[in-house]
Amino acid sequence: MPPAAHDVTDASALTGYGVNELDRLAEKRDDGAFVTALAAAPGARHLVFTGDVPLLRQRGDELDPYFLPHELAGLGAVRETTLLGRDAQGGVFGSLLEAPAAESGEGATGIVAMDLRTLAVQGLLPPPLLGALAQAKSLLYWHARHRFCSACGAPSVLASAGWRRDCPNCKAAHFPRTDPVVIMLAVAGERCLLGRQRRFPPGMYSALAGFLEPGETMESAVRREIAEEAGIEIGRVHYLATQPWPFPSSLMIGCLAEAATTDLRVDEVELEDARWFSRTEARAMLAGEHPQGLSAPQPLAIAHHILKFWVEQTPG
Amino acid sequence: MPPAAHDVTDASALTGYGVNELDRLAEKRDDGAFVTALAAAPGARHLVFTGDVPLLRQRGDELDPYFLPHELAGLGAVRETTLLGRDAQGGVFGSLLEAPAAESGEGATGIVAMDLRTLAVQGLLPPPLLGALAQAKSLLYWHARHRFCSACGAPSVLASAGWRRDCPNCKAAHFPRTDPVVIMLAVAGERCLLGRQRRFPPGMYSALAGFLEPGETMESAVRREIAEEAGIEIGRVHYLATQPWPFPSSLMIGCLAEAATTDLRVDEVELEDARWFSRTEARAMLAGEHPQGLSAPQPLAIAHHILKFWVEQTPG
Repeated sequence: MPPAAHDVTDASALTGYGVNELDRLAEKRDDGAFVTALAAAPGARHLVFTGDVPLLRQRGDELDPYFLPHELAGLGAVRETTLLGRDAQGGVFGSLLEAPAAESGEGATGIVAMDLRTLAVQGLLPPPLLGALAQAKSLLYWHARHRFCSACGAPSVLASAGWRRDCPNCKAAHFPRTDPVVIMLAVAGERCLLGRQRRFPPGMYSALAGFLEPGETMESAVRREIAEEAGIEIGRVHYLATQPWPFPSSLMIGCLAEAATTDLRVDEVELEDARWFSRTEARAMLAGEHPQGLSAPQPLAIAHHILKFWVEQTPG
Repeated sequence: MPPAAHDVTDASALTGYGVNELDRLAEKRDDGAFVTALAAAPGARHLVFTGDVPLLRQRGDELDPYFLPHELAGLGAVRETTLLGRDAQGGVFGSLLEAPAAESGEGATGIVAMDLRTLAVQGLLPPPLLGALAQAKSLLYWHARHRFCSACGAPSVLASAGWRRDCPNCKAAHFPRTDPVVIMLAVAGERCLLGRQRRFPPGMYSALAGFLEPGETMESAVRREIAEEAGIEIGRVHYLATQPWPFPSSLMIGCLAEAATTDLRVDEVELEDARWFSRTEARAMLAGEHPQGLSAPQPLAIAHHILKFWVEQTPG
C-alpha cells in the first residue's frame, strides 16, 4: 500500500520556505462572494508587509505574523490584499501597506518589522509560517512591480483575489511570475565544485547558480551556467530538490551535475573564486569545522542541502 | 572516466524544442560593439517572426528558417532584434517584424508562415532548429507583451541585445519571463491517471498539468494540482524531464507522482474527463492501437515521454 501523502518528507521540504500547509483554494479565487465572506468570517487573518518586509507582533519571546482584520486596520492604509489560502482556523490573506516602513505600523507598541531571511536563519518562526510568508512576499512584490499593464502602459487592477491583474484598457490579463533558477553542485569523483560571489560573507562558498532562460531545459541551463562560470563541461544532471526563494520570486531547482572535465576557467566578473573541494573538506564546511574557517551556506539555503546530500552519499 | 557531455542524451532532449545547440554568448550581450560586429559579420542569420509565427523559405521540399541580413530587410520593417547566440557559421538573431502576417513577407515568393507546433509535429525541421525557434519565439513574445514598464507605465526600451528591457523613466530593469508548469503522471501500481480537456482532439488523454505558483516547491505544486483536478492524494514525486514550451514561454517540469488514494473526484471545470488506465491500455494509446481509438499526446509533448517512461518500466 502506498504511503499517505503526509508521511512523505521531500528533500524540497527541508529547505527554507519549503513547507506551506495552506489550502490555496485556487478554484475559489474568482468567487468574489466566497472570498468576501471568508475575509469577514471568524479566524480570518492577514500577513502584513511594509515594502518587502513583514510586520510581526512581539509577545514576550514569541513573534506572531498574523493580524486580525481590525488589527490590520490599525497598522495603516492597505494597498493590496490577496487570498493566500485557508488553514484550520480560517482564511489567510496577504496585505501590503501603502506607507513605507518608517511611517507604518512598525512604530506601534509591540510591532516589529523583520526581513524574511533573518526570520528563517534565526529560526524565529515554524516552517509553515515561513512558507506562508514567502508565498505572500512573492505575490505582493509582483503586485508592487506590476501596477501598470506591460502591454499598453495603462494602470491595471487586481483580480481573482490577487492571482491576476487585468488591464481595463487593452483587456490583457497578467499572472504572477515565478523565475526558475538552476543551482547545482558539479562533482568529479571525490571532489565538488564550489564558488564564491563577492557579496558572500567572508570564507563562504556555495553551489553555482543562474536563471534558466527561455528555450532551455533544466539540464541545458545547468550545463550553460557551469560552462560560463567555471569552464567545466557537464555530463549527466540529477534533480534533487526545489525551493521557493522569495527574493523576490524564484524557484530554485537544485541538482547534482557530473563533471566531464576538471580544469577550471573561472568567470571573474561573476565569481571571486571557484575551486574543487574534497568530500572531507565539504563535510567540515557544513559542520563549521573547516581548518581555514571556510564555510557552506546555512540550512535555510537549498545549496546547504545539495552539498549535504553529496557529502553523505557513499563514495561510488 | 566520466562521459563527455556530448555523449549524454537527457530525457529532456527527447522532447519537442528540447535540443538547442546555440552558444548563447550570455557574457557578450552587454558588449554593444561585439554584438554589432557579429550581426554584420559573414554567417549572421535571422530567425524571423510575424506575430508569433516564424517565416520560412521554401526550397523544393525543404524549409529554411534562416534569413541573411539583406533578406530580412526585404521582408518588412523590423520591430525588435535579439541575439540568440552563435553556431559554427556565425551569429544567430531573432527578429520580430512590425507588420501583421497578412501584410508581411508571407506573400513574397517562396516565403511561408508556419506555426511552431505544426513544424514540430510534422517533423519539418531538425531538432536544433526547432529549439532555436522556440527560444526566439518565447523571447520575442516577451518583448511584444512588455513594451511598457510594469512598474510605472512608461515605454521601455530593449537592452542587453534583447535580454533585458530598461525603463528610462523609473530606471526599472525587466528580464525575460519563463513560467514553470508541473506536468505529472499519477500512478497507482499498474494504473496511471490521464485526463482530457475539452480543447483536446477527440479521444486524446494526457497527463495533468498546471502552473507552479509563488511559494511552491515542485512537489507541492504536483500535489496541489492533482488534488484540485482529480481529488487524488499523492505520496512521493519523481522528476523525469523538463521541456521548453514556447506557447508562449513555459518550462514544463515532468514528473511521476505516486498516488496514495485512487477514488477520483474530477474537477469538471478544468477537465472533461479523468480516469485510470492500465499499462496495457496506455501502451496501446501511445502506439495508436487502442481498441476504442483513444490516444496519447504526440512525441512533441513531454506528456508522451512521461507516459512512455512509465509504460516501459518493469512493473515493480
